[in-house]
Amino acid sequence: MTAELVVGADIGGTKIKYVVSDATGLSVLQDEIATNPDDPVASLERLACAIQENLPRKTGNVTAVGVACAGIVSQRVGKLGRSPNLPGWENIALVELIGSAFSNLPTLIANDVNAALFGEFRLGAGRSCQNLIMLALGTGVGGGVIVNGRLLTGAADGAGEIGHMVLDPTGPRCGCGNRGCLEAYAGGVALIRRARELINSQESLSSRFVAKVEQQASHLTTADLYQLARDGDVTAGELFHDAGLWLGQAVANLVNVLDPDRVIIGGGVAQAGDRARDEPGREVDSRTDEEGPGS
Amino acid sequence: MTAELVVGADIGGTKIKYVVSDATGLSVLQDEIATNPDDPVASLERLACAIQENLPRKTGNVTAVGVACAGIVSQRVGKLGRSPNLPGWENIALVELIGSAFSNLPTLIANDVNAALFGEFRLGAGRSCQNLIMLALGTGVGGGVIVNGRLLTGAADGAGEIGHMVLDPTGPRCGCGNRGCLEAYAGGVALIRRARELINSQESLSSRFVAKVEQQASHLTTADLYQLARDGDVTAGELFHDAGLWLGQAVANLVNVLDPDRVIIGGGVAQAGDRARDEPGREVDSRTDEEGPGS
Repeated sequence: MTAELVVGADIGGTKIKYVVSDATGLSVLQDEIATNPDDPVASLERLACAIQENLPRKTGNVTAVGVACAGIVSQRVGKLGRSPNLPGWENIALVELIGSAFSNLPTLIANDVNAALFGEFRLGAGRSCQNLIMLALGTGVGGGVIVNGRLLTGAADGAGEIGHMVLDPTGPRCGCGNRGCLEAYAGGVALIRRARELINSQESLSSRFVAKVEQQASHLTTADLYQLARDGDVTAGELFHDAGLWLGQAVANLVNVLDPDRVIIGGGVAQAGDRARDEPGREVDSRTDEEGPGS
Repeated sequence: MTAELVVGADIGGTKIKYVVSDATGLSVLQDEIATNPDDPVASLERLACAIQENLPRKTGNVTAVGVACAGIVSQRVGKLGRSPNLPGWENIALVELIGSAFSNLPTLIANDVNAALFGEFRLGAGRSCQNLIMLALGTGVGGGVIVNGRLLTGAADGAGEIGHMVLDPTGPRCGCGNRGCLEAYAGGVALIRRARELINSQESLSSRFVAKVEQQASHLTTADLYQLARDGDVTAGELFHDAGLWLGQAVANLVNVLDPDRVIIGGGVAQAGDRARDEPGREVDSRTDEEGPGS
């Protein structure tokens, strides 16, 4: 008897990462292919071929496919809506296309942050919890919510837009057009913009910070800023400190409304470690009151 | 055969309002008794007696009891925790005490805003919806959330504290100790405090506004302010307009995170009608983007 295997794929703007695993979650194949940003059909067929070619013989049969994707994903109607990094994939019947490429196997699609959250819920930081919130700090700030053991999709697949919670209506302009969204404080784009603004300001900055930002110019990344902060640079440290304070206010608001078992912070900026954890923790403690009669 | 009846009671700081209805929701008795703020046992026994005495003969038998109460109510452990208006009732085994007074009938307890929300969900503004948010604008600002057709209680019965969502960390001080909570902008206490602050400020105010606030002195209510606004007083109108803007920001944040079918605004201050509805509506429209692939 051969094992029943499942495919999990994460479709990004430049590559599709995939894994094939057995029912226990043990991976038997893990690789990636390039995304064709203009041709979802060709991309999904290449994915199916790559798996067929690379899957060791006699390992088992693929019985189901799960695909994660940035953007507005509707499990209900099986469609991918708006997806900033995949303009050529917008408004497609994603489930149908996956079915065509994978011999009509059972298929599930999800927003990438929801998929990551569900993974943490089943196998990671959220095991044994029924109520979870995830914030994914990357270029922007994504979010996902699990309530009573189920992913929250909302009335029109729009739930989890935590990055556009307004924390100060007079705050910095966000990419969405509003002011003071969490993303405008704690997203990667916002951190880099703030670093550049500091260079152009009259404030006294460490020479190391100025050198790094000017040297990297348009290639400046949050990893550069994080490296500076980890090396003890005060200005870079303050950037992450401030982002952490706003992140804490956002998490406190979410805790007051949803009272989750756990809040999971993931994504690249979250690698800033203590700086991305301590400030939010203090903010949440000072802004929430978690005592209940049953606790 | 006699009908199966249910009791619903709302325990407030001064009175217990109750209703006895049949399975279709048709009320056969509706009345109130005084709350004994220091003695929950005596209050609940009086409630049971009042119902026994006043229920018309042959109407039917009471088969279950539902009790709503302000404060932190844990359905899970059957206890009432902190309850600002009922200090003598705090930390009591409420379900057990109701059972003693009502011959151990099946009993359910809920926070008052959650109970109101559940009523709207089953019989009112939220019928046919699976995802709802309620804001109750009274002395403070209460909240409740229904997700996937179930009341959200959270990990420690603390969900729904929408009034303590921080909208501006430099905003006015809230009763909870933080700054800029929704309650500090849109709660009744906040509106009255703001009206008094205006009197003490150097701003030019309408003589009608000044006269009303000074005449009522410590007895000033939101109903007084609402009457002024409805009579066309500009200052009072601006008070509600501002509260509406902040309410709108809070609702937009909730819509971005939860994507509900409907948001229900209830409570006394919500009677301010257009002023409590139009501003929030505009704020939500400008701060959310509800387009989904399935809509």
